[in-house]
Amino acid sequence: MLAMLDGTVLDPDAPHIRVDDLGLLRGDGVFETVLVVDGKPRELGPHLDRLARSAAMLDLPEPDRAAWERVCSVVISEWPAAGEMALKLVYTRGPEFGDGSTTSFALGLPIAASQLRARVSGVAAVTLARGFDPSDVPGAPWLLLGAKTLSYAVNMAAGRHAAAQGAEEVIFTAADDTVLEGPTSTAVLVRGRTLRTVPPSSGVLAGTTQGALFRAAERAGWTTKVEPIPVADLRAADAVFLASSVRKITRVRVLDGVELAASPELHAELNALYESEYA
Amino acid sequence: MLAMLDGTVLDPDAPHIRVDDLGLLRGDGVFETVLVVDGKPRELGPHLDRLARSAAMLDLPEPDRAAWERVCSVVISEWPAAGEMALKLVYTRGPEFGDGSTTSFALGLPIAASQLRARVSGVAAVTLARGFDPSDVPGAPWLLLGAKTLSYAVNMAAGRHAAAQGAEEVIFTAADDTVLEGPTSTAVLVRGRTLRTVPPSSGVLAGTTQGALFRAAERAGWTTKVEPIPVADLRAADAVFLASSVRKITRVRVLDGVELAASPELHAELNALYESEYA
Repeated sequence: MLAMLDGTVLDPDAPHIRVDDLGLLRGDGVFETVLVVDGKPRELGPHLDRLARSAAMLDLPEPDRAAWERVCSVVISEWPAAGEMALKLVYTRGPEFGDGSTTSFALGLPIAASQLRARVSGVAAVTLARGFDPSDVPGAPWLLLGAKTLSYAVNMAAGRHAAAQGAEEVIFTAADDTVLEGPTSTAVLVRGRTLRTVPPSSGVLAGTTQGALFRAAERAGWTTKVEPIPVADLRAADAVFLASSVRKITRVRVLDGVELAASPELHAELNALYESEYA
Repeated sequence: MLAMLDGTVLDPDAPHIRVDDLGLLRGDGVFETVLVVDGKPRELGPHLDRLARSAAMLDLPEPDRAAWERVCSVVISEWPAAGEMALKLVYTRGPEFGDGSTTSFALGLPIAASQLRARVSGVAAVTLARGFDPSDVPGAPWLLLGAKTLSYAVNMAAGRHAAAQGAEEVIFTAADDTVLEGPTSTAVLVRGRTLRTVPPSSGVLAGTTQGALFRAAERAGWTTKVEPIPVADLRAADAVFLASSVRKITRVRVLDGVELAASPELHAELNALYESEYA
C-alpha cells in the first residue's frame, strides 16, 4: 500500500521515482518505520519528531507534520489486513534535475515472518566495529550520526556479514569499546531492576520502541539509565534485547557465538510493559 | 539521456524506479561516473573494474561487463551535444518486494558549470574528520570503505558543511591525522617532481582520474607514491589537487581558509599530462 505525501494512492509495484532522485543517487534522504497494530500507529509522535530531527541534520526542508499524519491515516485505512503493518515514511531531497521539489511517500508493508519468529525465539547477534569514537560525534555534524538516513549500505552489509556467520543481528561497537546499536534497532541491557541503553550523544539513534519501553518500565518502578555502556557489560547482563518498531522487544539469545543468560519471565515482563503503553 | 542496462532508451524525466528499490530505501547499490569527451569515454575499463569491485564488496551479483559497455555506447551515441558528458552508471540491489532482479541504468548528464569553472579557477577546500582509523579498514569489510556505494549522505552533508563556510570542496581526514580523499574526488599532493596520493588500504577509493594522471606522469619521468600522507603535508606541498572524472585535475587554491602555494605552470603541466592519455 503506497501513498504520496499529498494523499494520492498509487500502485506500489509501478515505478514512481525518477532515476535522478537524490534519495537513490546519493542516499540523500531520511526515513522512519512505524509499527501499526489493528489500525493504530505506535509512537507516531516520536517517529515524526525524529523524522524532523533527521531532516534538519540533512538540511532538508522541515517536514509538513500535518501532511505526514494525514498520509499515514490514508495508508492505514487502505491496508486490507488486520493485525500488524510496518509503515515506512520516506523523505528524499528529490530529483537532482527536477523542479526542486522533494520526494515523500508512505509505504505499508507486512511484517517479515523472520521478525515475527525472532520476537518469540530470540536472535543470535555478533558485535561489529562501527569505526568511530563517540568523542568525535559532537564536533562532526556532517557524519550524520543520529540521523536516520537512507544511506544504510553499511547497515545492510553488517547484516549480511552476520548472516554469513549464522547470526541474524548485529550490535555495533565504537572505537572506545562501548556499545552502540543494531543496524536497525536499539540495544537494551537488563541487570536487576535496571534497564540501560546508549545516549544519542554516542552517535546512535534515539529509539522510539526503547523510549516506550523505558517510559512503561519507569512507571512500573524500574530504574532506567541512558549512558555509555562498555562492550563487556553485554556478557555480564541478565539479558540483552534489541528494540525496534518491527522487532518490538527481541531477545539476544547468542552473542558472538556464546549463549547469553535466558529468562523467559523477564522477557515476558518487558513485553508486557511495552504492550501496556498501547492497552 | 537514459538507458537501462538492456539498452532500452527511456525518458529521464519520467519515473522508472519503484519506491521499494533497495537503492532508494537503503542506499544499497554502487555507481560510477565516467567522463565522456567528444563521444569517447575515459577510463571506462578502470571504471567498470571498480564497479565490479564495489559490487563484490556489497555481495551484489557480478556486473555483466559486456552489457555495461553496450549501454554506455547507447547513451553516448544518443547524446546530442559534442564536448563533454558525465555518464553515470548505477547498479542497485533492486526492488525489495520484486522478482529478485537488480536495477541497472546509465544516465548521461551535462557537466555542471561550477565544475567547469573550478577546473580553471581552483577551489577552496576544508578538511573534515571522516571518523575512522585506517588501521580498522582491513578487518572490517562491512564498513564498505573503498566501495563506491549509493550511500553518500555523509559525503553530501560534508559538501554542504563546506559550502556553509564558503568553500566548494572537502578533504576528509582520518582519526590518525592522515589525509583520506574528497567526498567525490581523490587528493593528489605535489612536491618537487613527486606526485602522492593515499592507498586504498587507508579506506579510500582508487581514483580513475588520479590513476590516469599517475600513469602519464610516470612515463614523463615523475616519481609517484601511493602511501599514507600526514595532514600537515597538505600545507607543505607545492600544490594540492582534487582529481575526479568531472573535475579532471582541479587545484585546491585555499585550504581551511589559508591560501596555498600557486603554480600555474605546474597546474598546466599536470593537465597536459592527464590529457596526453587521450590524445
